Amino acid sequence: MLQEEIRRRNLGNLLRHVHLDGSVSRAALAERMGLNRSTIMALTLELTAAGLVREEAPTDTGRTGRPSLVVRPETAGVYVLAFDVAVDWLTAARVGLGGVILDRRLAARPRAGADLDRVVEVLAGFGRELHGTAPPEAVCVGVGASYCGMIRPGDGMVRFGPDMGWVDQAFGAELGHRLGLARPVPVGNEAHLGAVAEQQRGAGLGFQNMIYLHGDVGVGGGIIVGGKLLDGDGGYACELGHMVVNPHHGRPCGCGSRGCLEAEVGERALLDAAGRPADLFGRDALRDVVTDAGRGDPAAREALHRIGDWLGVGVANLINLFNPGIVIFGGMLRDVYPGAADQVRTRIADNVLPVARERVRLRTSALGDDATLVGAAELGFSELLADPLGGVVPALPPGR
Amino acid sequence: MLQEEIRRRNLGNLLRHVHLDGSVSRAALAERMGLNRSTIMALTLELTAAGLVREEAPTDTGRTGRPSLVVRPETAGVYVLAFDVAVDWLTAARVGLGGVILDRRLAARPRAGADLDRVVEVLAGFGRELHGTAPPEAVCVGVGASYCGMIRPGDGMVRFGPDMGWVDQAFGAELGHRLGLARPVPVGNEAHLGAVAEQQRGAGLGFQNMIYLHGDVGVGGGIIVGGKLLDGDGGYACELGHMVVNPHHGRPCGCGSRGCLEAEVGERALLDAAGRPADLFGRDALRDVVTDAGRGDPAAREALHRIGDWLGVGVANLINLFNPGIVIFGGMLRDVYPGAADQVRTRIADNVLPVARERVRLRTSALGDDATLVGAAELGFSELLADPLGGVVPALPPGR
Repeated sequence: MLQEEIRRRNLGNLLRHVHLDGSVSRAALAERMGLNRSTIMALTLELTAAGLVREEAPTDTGRTGRPSLVVRPETAGVYVLAFDVAVDWLTAARVGLGGVILDRRLAARPRAGADLDRVVEVLAGFGRELHGTAPPEAVCVGVGASYCGMIRPGDGMVRFGPDMGWVDQAFGAELGHRLGLARPVPVGNEAHLGAVAEQQRGAGLGFQNMIYLHGDVGVGGGIIVGGKLLDGDGGYACELGHMVVNPHHGRPCGCGSRGCLEAEVGERALLDAAGRPADLFGRDALRDVVTDAGRGDPAAREALHRIGDWLGVGVANLINLFNPGIVIFGGMLRDVYPGAADQVRTRIADNVLPVARERVRLRTSALGDDATLVGAAELGFSELLADPLGGVVPALPPGR
Repeated sequence: MLQEEIRRRNLGNLLRHVHLDGSVSRAALAERMGLNRSTIMALTLELTAAGLVREEAPTDTGRTGRPSLVVRPETAGVYVLAFDVAVDWLTAARVGLGGVILDRRLAARPRAGADLDRVVEVLAGFGRELHGTAPPEAVCVGVGASYCGMIRPGDGMVRFGPDMGWVDQAFGAELGHRLGLARPVPVGNEAHLGAVAEQQRGAGLGFQNMIYLHGDVGVGGGIIVGGKLLDGDGGYACELGHMVVNPHHGRPCGCGSRGCLEAEVGERALLDAAGRPADLFGRDALRDVVTDAGRGDPAAREALHRIGDWLGVGVANLINLFNPGIVIFGGMLRDVYPGAADQVRTRIADNVLPVARERVRLRTSALGDDATLVGAAELGFSELLADPLGGVVPALPPGR
């Protein structure tokens, strides 16, 4: 029994290494897992027989001697369905083992809000379509979703989705029901999932303490502390967008408060600062400001500097609090940050205690807008990775 | 070997339970540790023979049946030396197993600063005195120190001690040297240690996610995330006093920035707000304001409200970021908080997302000014608790 438990854990760990790295030699697996090569070979054979990995001769390593076989995930044959409810779009994707997006469907979403039924209907339709067009031998091993709001862990209940006006909407349960699953789809906050994805596969690789700021209309956050996502007592931590940085003179925020970080650096703040019309909105409008600033337009540059100053106040506070190794700017902040970096750096130099900023790096997201989707996929893969041979029960029946 | 390792871990866990709880029945130990009662008895016998615990018949439990023996720490016989360098005082104490302060020495410290030599001389003198007057059969098992600044983990180097003007001063090494020890005294930041003490023995007992604000001249912080102190990449996290809450109109801060939480709610801010003379300072002056406010003095009350508003901005930000179960006000904030609580609560209601504040509690410190000293003692006990029978080598030779 103990033996069986150890074997299961080893299989899971090996599969996780292959899933996260994409391609690992047997020798590297033996070293990282502290197991001998014959054990690695036996574990790999089991995973191969289950259709989860395959072994290949490595491409020329330039070294003499017999090369170690390379283990790769069966990306095309083992996948999850990942869903992303963002402010401006609904996305569904088929994401293969190894975290590769194989196929996707995208729908624009009106800002005016949408009811649960309509959102779930669109996503479930996409999901069935993606599942139905997958190769016949491919297996769906899980489902996961990202949502731009506060999510109750466990059942995917949206406690608060400000831009849609959702309060206590059973999103995970409804999506699961509509997909014909026996239980709720696991759901995570978009910035939490983006942070995990960036740490596992993106700019945060190798960092144990990391701040991820996710710009959408507002600003969400995912904070990694000691290698783990900061969740707090109820799973509602990391709301850095509602850190008040300008309490007495701040712009009103969608949350009902005033001077929140997202009110000062969000989409509306930037467009207003750049003097754009009040009825303009969306990612394209925002990118236009960034492009104009790049061309030297003074109002656009000034707008980015103003946003950068507030962003710097917020980031400096976070560095004082978390002493992170890296701060990552994702979502729309990936576009905004380069033109605002000088102001951010100045604020950090002025406001952060020298000892706490000695080694911090500032980077833009490596995964871009896919970070949330890749993070959602990770929710779908979690059962398979916990028990690779017990878990390969199709999450959805074959689509045809 | 594995057996020996398990035994050592069980001994350490049992001693830790007794150390933290003060008095635990064998039955409760068996239940909490998941071991049978004969194993608990054997472990307890070993710890008793080593002079670390003793067993007693419980006081009348009011229940029928044979009562379970109660295990207590040998508080008088097993102690550490704990040191505390605060802004206004230097303290040393003999702290017995179980976290009980047995004896202490205290010296006022001038605000003007003090050099390393002088501070270490006073503390080492106190330490020798406390050690020398301990009962002849008592054993000193460790040493630990608290310091009001940023400390490098491992060697007790003070990286930044703003009120003394210390930068990179080898406090831990010098104190160890002066006490005749072979290695540096482990040192922690005062608010970090206070947080750990409050979580283990104070208002934070049972909370896994906790914010501790420690008011001295400024405001330090200790943040517990998932049961562990938030340390960050270098051990310099939790600097919530330097979270900027008033970036453009703020008071200058000792760190060189402006509008930091500690600049808006620290001792000077409160005394200024209450219209006290600029040359007045210290805990007594501050308590006078609190007392006057209690008597209905309008200027003093208004000062507390003003500080409470800024304190609320800071605490609201922390709740949005950490979704903690409890926020604890310690150090001088223990005195200030009751007269400022309404403003703090109003800010939390206005600035924190409802979902994140559903269950948070606000409390004052249970250990008061002893929190840092008790936390420093914990550093001294850590080796004994890790290996109770291997670790009982006197940290200091007998004093006589």
